[in-house]
Parts: sequence; C-alpha cells; structure tokens
Amino acid sequence: MRVFNFSAGPAVLPETVLERAAAEMLDWRGTGMSVMEMSHRGKEFIGIAAKAEADLRTLLAIPADYKVLFLQGGAIGENAIVPMNLVGGHKVADYINTGEWSKKSIKEAKKYCTVNVAASSEDLDFTYVPPQSAWKLSDDPAFVHVCTNETIGGVEYQWTPDIGRIPLVADMSSHLLSRVIDVSKYGVIYGGAQKNAGPAGLTLVIVRGDLLDRALPITPSAFHWKEQAAADSMVNTPPTYAIYIAGLVFEWLLAQGGVAAIEQRNIAKAKMLYDYLDATRFYTSPARKADRSRMNVRFHLHDESLNEAFLKGAKAAGMDQLKGHRVVGGMRASIYNAMPIEGVRTLVEYMKAFEQRHG
Amino acid sequence: MRVFNFSAGPAVLPETVLERAAAEMLDWRGTGMSVMEMSHRGKEFIGIAAKAEADLRTLLAIPADYKVLFLQGGAIGENAIVPMNLVGGHKVADYINTGEWSKKSIKEAKKYCTVNVAASSEDLDFTYVPPQSAWKLSDDPAFVHVCTNETIGGVEYQWTPDIGRIPLVADMSSHLLSRVIDVSKYGVIYGGAQKNAGPAGLTLVIVRGDLLDRALPITPSAFHWKEQAAADSMVNTPPTYAIYIAGLVFEWLLAQGGVAAIEQRNIAKAKMLYDYLDATRFYTSPARKADRSRMNVRFHLHDESLNEAFLKGAKAAGMDQLKGHRVVGGMRASIYNAMPIEGVRTLVEYMKAFEQRHG
Repeated sequence: MRVFNFSAGPAVLPETVLERAAAEMLDWRGTGMSVMEMSHRGKEFIGIAAKAEADLRTLLAIPADYKVLFLQGGAIGENAIVPMNLVGGHKVADYINTGEWSKKSIKEAKKYCTVNVAASSEDLDFTYVPPQSAWKLSDDPAFVHVCTNETIGGVEYQWTPDIGRIPLVADMSSHLLSRVIDVSKYGVIYGGAQKNAGPAGLTLVIVRGDLLDRALPITPSAFHWKEQAAADSMVNTPPTYAIYIAGLVFEWLLAQGGVAAIEQRNIAKAKMLYDYLDATRFYTSPARKADRSRMNVRFHLHDESLNEAFLKGAKAAGMDQLKGHRVVGGMRASIYNAMPIEGVRTLVEYMKAFEQRHG
Repeated sequence: MRVFNFSAGPAVLPETVLERAAAEMLDWRGTGMSVMEMSHRGKEFIGIAAKAEADLRTLLAIPADYKVLFLQGGAIGENAIVPMNLVGGHKVADYINTGEWSKKSIKEAKKYCTVNVAASSEDLDFTYVPPQSAWKLSDDPAFVHVCTNETIGGVEYQWTPDIGRIPLVADMSSHLLSRVIDVSKYGVIYGGAQKNAGPAGLTLVIVRGDLLDRALPITPSAFHWKEQAAADSMVNTPPTYAIYIAGLVFEWLLAQGGVAAIEQRNIAKAKMLYDYLDATRFYTSPARKADRSRMNVRFHLHDESLNEAFLKGAKAAGMDQLKGHRVVGGMRASIYNAMPIEGVRTLVEYMKAFEQRHG
C-alpha cells in the first residue's frame, strides 16, 4: 500500500509515472532494452531527451534564446558551478540570504568571487523574504542570486525581483514547475530535480544565451554551460534514467493541464493546511504569512514533548516524512505537485484529531 | 523480447536486476514508496547506500583505510575533480596517454596544474599500452594518472603499474568489477558506473584516506572528497536511485561468485571473440594482442563498404549497438559482466555466417 509521503526531497512522484517506469523497465517500446541500458548517443535516448526538453519548454514557456541543460551535481554542486560560469570579467556577486539554502550558495560562491550579501532575513530567523526595497546591491555585480523557495525555512518569493539589466539567478529547486513563472525575468534558473521534476541526480539549468561567455578557465567541461549547451548536455554521459523519469513527470504535468492548472491545486492544498494552522493555537507556523511557502509547510506543536507521539500516530495513519529538518526542528509537510489533495486532507484531519486528544 | 546489447555504456544490466527494480518500483519492501521517492536522510535509504558500499568493499576487497564515495558528474566530471582534490602542494601531475579517455583526462587536468605526459601510445594510434619501462615520470608529481581500459581504443592494462610512493590514480570506468584488482596498489580509483556497476549518473570513487588533505580551495563542496567522505557522500543529495540499482548489481555479482568468478567468464567471452578474429582475415582487430581489452572488443570489416549490411543483419538477428565509436570507426562489441556468453556466441556465429556470405 502506498503512503502519503511528505518528504522534502527526494519526494513523492506521480503514481502513473512509477507504473509506466515499471512496465517499461525491461523493454522500452520494443527496443529490447531498458532505458537504463541505452547508449546516450543512440536515436532512442536522444529522442527521449529531446522530448523531455521540449515538454519542459512548453510547461515553463521558456523563450527560444534560453538554453535548457540536464546536468549533474544537484543544487549544491550548481552553487559552485553558477559563479564558475558567470563571474568571468567581474569581481563581485550579490546574494540575498533567506536561509539555509542561500547560505550554502554563499559559501560556495566565496570560492570564486567576492560575495556581497545584499539583504538578509537572518534577523528574524529567516522567517521572511526581504523586500526588494531593502536590497543593497553592489555597483556592478556579476549577478544577483536568490533562492526563491527555502525548503528548510518554508519561505517563498511570491513576487519576482526586478533588477534591470543585472542577471537574476534563482535557485528554484523546491518550487520549479509548481507555479507559473516568467522565465524572461531571469538570467539563470536552476534546481535539483528531486522535488517536482523527477529523481535525485539530475540538475536542471535554464540559462539565457548571452550569459554563456563568462565562464572562468577553471570550469570543468562537465559543468561548463557553454560546452554543455553546444553538446545538448552530452559533453559527458548524462544521467539518462533520471532524464527519462523527468520526461514522464513532464508528460504527467501536461496531462494535468500544465503549470497554471497545478498551481491552482497547489494554492488550494496550501490554503487547506495554513487555514487550519491559523485557526489553532495547538500548532504554530513560523513563516510570515505573505512569504509562506506553498511547497514546504513548516509547523511546530506548541508542546514539543508531543513530537514523537505526533509522528508515530501519523505513520500509523499512512503519512510519512513529516519530521522537520534538523536545523529548525518541528514538523514540515512538503506538498509538491505529486501530493494529492487527499494527502493534505488526511493530514489536516489527523492534526485536528491529535489536537482534540492532546489539546 | 530482450536483445543482446553490445553498447559501450550505458550498457546491458543483469535481467534479474531490472526485474527486481520493476517489482519494487511502487513499494520498496512495504515502505509504501519507491526508492526514488525516499529521503536520502531516512533510515531506509541510508541502509540501501550502506549495503551497496559494504558489498562493493567485499567485491573488491577494499582495505579499511580507503574511502568509498558515491558522487555525480561521471568520469569526465571526475577528470577535473581528481586534480582539484589532489594537486594541492604540488605543481605537476603525470599522465599516461593511451587514447581518447586519457586525452580527456589530460585536457581537464591542465586547468589546475602542469601536466607531464610521461608516456603515450599515440605513435601507433593508441593500439597498445606503453610499458612502464618507457614512462618518463616527473621528479615530484602530485600523482600518476592512467586509464586502465580505453573504451574507445579497446586496449587494457593487463598489469599493475608499480610507482612506489607516488599515488597512482586510475580511471577504471569501463572495466572496474570485471577483474580482480589489488586496490592497495592505487591511491585513487574512479569510474562512471554505467558499464559494469549500474546506470549513468553515478560516479564511484575509491580513495586512500591519507590523500584527503590535498584539495585546492576552489574545489566545490559537492565534489570535495574529504567533505564527502566525512558526510557519507551526502554533502548534497546523492543520486539515490542509481545507488540503489548499483547495489542490486553488486548483489547480483556476489551471487555470481564475485569478481574472481566473473573474471573467468569474461576471459572466456573475450577469448571466444578474439580467437575467431585471429583466425579470419575478413575482420581485423587493431589492438596489440597483449593489451587487448576484455571489455571492449574492436574490430573492422576488411571491406568497410559492408559495414552497414553487417550492422543491419546483426540487428535483425537480435544484436544491437555494435557500431564502433565515431572517432575510430569500425565495430565494437562491449561485453561487460552482464553480457551472457550466449550473446558472444551469437555474435561470433553471425560474424562467421556474414563472412561466408560476403567473404
């Protein structure tokens, strides 16, 4: 029996995607081989990768002058790869610090350039997104980096920064494909796939074509955006099976009505949970209302000595992975695209019953 | 129906591994989730990764003072990551150039240090391995790098270099786990998994513990061996599903009798094919006999105008991916661990019949 899996990532995938992957495991469409066994240079896999890219372009309405790359190393790898590819000719990069993932990005960037933290919400334990009016940008930064959804802190940009001609770089790992975005407002969008797009081991990078000439000479070929763009992400052997699964997820998302449709369902799911959190004092939710994440809903039991009982009862009721990240404690319900609204309803009902029993 | 898949990588996997992966796709051992959906921090996945590492240690008899890392980026990524992690405190690294994969390694290394090509077989189109007596090592190299099986050229070290206290670094991508090796003779062994170990998207690194203090400050955390060793390869989210599949392959290999047993079968498979190539003049095999690869058997039709007919007939007879790499042309039969001897027998019989028809 399948559980409701609230893991922050790797995370729940659509059941139909898993069923199709299982059915095709030994023989993909009469080729006599698994996708896992296919040469990445063969026409079958090239077709799978091209279809995945085309569907991703459709889903996000990616303009033609942007390249889509399927890389490896995850967001933490990309945290280093971004400055390697972008600081050439510049000395400083600006970072907005909204929590644990921003901090990781800053740590890596310092290896390659001077980092100016242009704004931070550390003063209030990263429970909000600093408004753009509070940003103190450098004179000529190579780029401005934001993490548009902080998976651990549970805060999300509900607006798009507007910084003119300076390239805006966004780590969107944990909310990419969950809401409509205007790609043209960004220089680079990147993210690990293991939230809304597929399995761990695949990194999505969307980069505007005119930014491909800024790489430092130390950039490894496997992570060199311009070289990868010229080679259709096949400078090295790509993570073929992860790309195939991501492609199945993209097909599923298109069948759901695309990103605009799933966004409405994500709004409804988040509202159901936050409405209850706002109505109770048994649980608290630390993020500022305007900046709450639709994907990663943080909450704490008012009486934290009940945490273990809460998690144990949830597991018995078919809900898993609700424990909050060790850095912030408490609980976290990650409700990505593939989490059905029944999962959220089951959680809220369980939370209410738990409150009645222990409140 | 399954075909005999002679792809050089990604490559054939054991059918029982694929069957088990398919059966467990929606619910791994009663957890109610796919391995693809599991948090890498949960006890289930930590158990899967620990078992994979333990089985790999058993298979290769890896000494306790060596770390095993499950990383991303493939061998081409690792070509840059190796010098990043090893040249600290040194200026020069020595490389033995035996073909296309050595050249890729050299290209990346030049970004981080001075490369001394201590020996090369380019004079004879990379058809042999330069004997150690011909190597001209630097005075104090950070390490000596070899590619012990050239997937494209089809040559393989049938001996282990002995260079004293200088760390020996080996790209073993395409023959790791195909033959018994003495890990203690190497400082670092690395390879992409997509030949004998699993799917693309997973890089195996085996590194002696005393070599972990040499990283350059520019090394990204996701590729920093010491940080990854301290974090059980979880500085970033590892390629969880690829690790799971590799673990299933390791279990399969143990059930086959381990590396010593599979090596005997690999010797028999290669002998069957090379014996025929030595007995015919219709096909030629460019690699020097003593240095022939057991994994990647290169051959050319004497009359190359028959290439297309050869490939078409092979496909019709249930054999795929026999076309040689574009750099060297001709044919290549990659006969990794998971290729059954029936596949090789079928190929040889087809080659004989083709010769009779066209010879």
